[in-house]
Amino acid sequence: MKLPSGYRYASLYAGIRKYPKDDLAFLTSDVPAACAGVFTQNRVQAAPVRLCKANLKAGNGMVRAVLVNAGNANCATRSGDRVALATCRAAAKTLGVPAAQVLVASTGVIGVELDGKLITKALPQLAAALSPDSFRAVSEAIMTTDTRPKTSSAEVSAGNGAVNIAGMTKGAGMIMPMMATTLGFVMTDAAIAVGRLRGMLREAAEESFNRLSVDGDTSTNDTLLLLANGASGQKIGARDEGHFTDALTHVMQDLARQIARDGEGAKKLITIQVSGTRTKEDAARIARAIANSPLVKTAIAGSDPNWGRILSAAGNSGVPFDPSKTDVVLQGVTVCRAGLAARFSEPALKNKLDGDEVTIGVFINGSGRGESRFWTCDFTEDYIRINASYRT
Amino acid sequence: MKLPSGYRYASLYAGIRKYPKDDLAFLTSDVPAACAGVFTQNRVQAAPVRLCKANLKAGNGMVRAVLVNAGNANCATRSGDRVALATCRAAAKTLGVPAAQVLVASTGVIGVELDGKLITKALPQLAAALSPDSFRAVSEAIMTTDTRPKTSSAEVSAGNGAVNIAGMTKGAGMIMPMMATTLGFVMTDAAIAVGRLRGMLREAAEESFNRLSVDGDTSTNDTLLLLANGASGQKIGARDEGHFTDALTHVMQDLARQIARDGEGAKKLITIQVSGTRTKEDAARIARAIANSPLVKTAIAGSDPNWGRILSAAGNSGVPFDPSKTDVVLQGVTVCRAGLAARFSEPALKNKLDGDEVTIGVFINGSGRGESRFWTCDFTEDYIRINASYRT
Repeated sequence: MKLPSGYRYASLYAGIRKYPKDDLAFLTSDVPAACAGVFTQNRVQAAPVRLCKANLKAGNGMVRAVLVNAGNANCATRSGDRVALATCRAAAKTLGVPAAQVLVASTGVIGVELDGKLITKALPQLAAALSPDSFRAVSEAIMTTDTRPKTSSAEVSAGNGAVNIAGMTKGAGMIMPMMATTLGFVMTDAAIAVGRLRGMLREAAEESFNRLSVDGDTSTNDTLLLLANGASGQKIGARDEGHFTDALTHVMQDLARQIARDGEGAKKLITIQVSGTRTKEDAARIARAIANSPLVKTAIAGSDPNWGRILSAAGNSGVPFDPSKTDVVLQGVTVCRAGLAARFSEPALKNKLDGDEVTIGVFINGSGRGESRFWTCDFTEDYIRINASYRT
Repeated sequence: MKLPSGYRYASLYAGIRKYPKDDLAFLTSDVPAACAGVFTQNRVQAAPVRLCKANLKAGNGMVRAVLVNAGNANCATRSGDRVALATCRAAAKTLGVPAAQVLVASTGVIGVELDGKLITKALPQLAAALSPDSFRAVSEAIMTTDTRPKTSSAEVSAGNGAVNIAGMTKGAGMIMPMMATTLGFVMTDAAIAVGRLRGMLREAAEESFNRLSVDGDTSTNDTLLLLANGASGQKIGARDEGHFTDALTHVMQDLARQIARDGEGAKKLITIQVSGTRTKEDAARIARAIANSPLVKTAIAGSDPNWGRILSAAGNSGVPFDPSKTDVVLQGVTVCRAGLAARFSEPALKNKLDGDEVTIGVFINGSGRGESRFWTCDFTEDYIRINASYRT
């Protein structure tokens, strides 16, 4: 994996988690990096989300570091804002950079006070450990209930040379009670102005993290940051913007797919492809309704080609469409043609559905050229077992 | 149970289900009854839903009979409209009434052709069996995956005497694959004009069936009919309208609660009470978001007082509110006060959550006086087991 230049990473165990696994991570840029962020739309927002937004504003989108802790979401806590600000300032002081250029992110349990001293005490050691090579270690430190780290990268030609993009993310749903966070950090060594970077992130997020659902619950801590420090010496101008955004979208889709695949209790990655709607937004709404239907997700878990549930979920999306012009395709097999049962071999299709990747296609013929892709996972008894277990 | 006068009921096994349990039912009124209906909002609508709407229009809302079959939804079928119309006409002929005064409803598997001959052949025997006493038998015949029949009734003083209301419903979610139907039939012997009846049904449905969720999926066949035949000789005038609608709402809430309690795999009835929002609609949106959150429903299954999930689901509803003014109450115990953890004994509360009824209260202080109640059930491994099992 080729990493972008000019970034350093570190992680350690600060005692925030109950078990001794790294729970504090640092991502730094050697020079101020342009930064764009997208955050949870949940009305209940964690303190670190509020501080990120404030600092991005105060610092005009220039960022030197991101401090991340796992094991505590610092959400719905009395000391939330105070702890977020104190740890941000301490991190800034340790690095010798303005506090407005340091962002913080938290993931873990909601409603339990976060002990900021655990973090400030660990900062000198954390800063001393910063290294360009600890990318992987940081991607593991930010995990909560994830079963594996999630990273992706791309190399893009730009200007007279090449720039690199590398991202990491975490999130598996809420396997451990009150775990409710998706975090994503994407770094590039391209030089990109903050305004342009924001547009790129919005566009790429729309086609990746916003097309992802494990259980339909949006967390209080969702934070996705894109940093561009220019360390490659290559600037993304108008000529390169298109293919750079494509590569960025590709990296972020790869990360989003990894989250879906690692969804709580999930055994199958489900890709939903909707096309033929009037607009792209209509296609996304239909895809989201299918992705959030427990009945569709349990049918896939049971390898049941139950297309009635898929058609019904689409009809439930609020998007007007003509069912009698709608085809449903499962693993490449047309199971519903023009709104009616198609002929297919159920045992053969059931075998195809037994794999660990399932594709659902919904084609609405004649309405338009809108299309969208969406990722989710199947819904197994393990999801219930995990989420119904009493907190220990 | 005191039944309204002037209605007769019958059911028999016509061979639509695979197993020999009554699957065809008739509800008739001795005289034309005013009728109001509410139907699924799903874009995919079954043939009987379309025919109900057409006949209510063509017959000016006057109805003599409702013909119901279980075991086949007559949805997404080639012969759907043809079969619905043919069975409706045959039923009308058997009774000697206009076809526009006969409604039809179906529940069961989607996408499989319904054999109308099974129904028309059985009609003479069905009509011959009509009796005022077979209300209970019909409430059992319309069951699909329900574990028990669901009925409710009320007596209301009106005019110089009293009128009766009796209702039945079915629905447990979609325990058997592709079962996707809630049906409800409510009869009264009060005399009520069609226009007024429609308003009453809308009002009562809004506070009952529209405040109910098992798994967030709206079916293709949902049909709720209210019939008023005037057989009591008492008219519901302006003076009686209020308390009659209250009694009707009470009966329909009782039916809705029974559906939630019998939800697929459910062990607990969950009542969600939201108050203090700007409007009633805002309260209902927050309550619905909580009711549809798999994370809240699995926590309740595990008797886990996991209020962070409740607050997060509320924040996810799209309704603007101030989390720092929000209290969450579980089984009467305040678990979150002003958006922060309250002090409570977890073991004691866990014991309280082990019962078969759970109440979640969300109080948003200071925004307004909007409030709403909503019913759902917990989410257990049985739900997955039932819905993931391959069709047999």
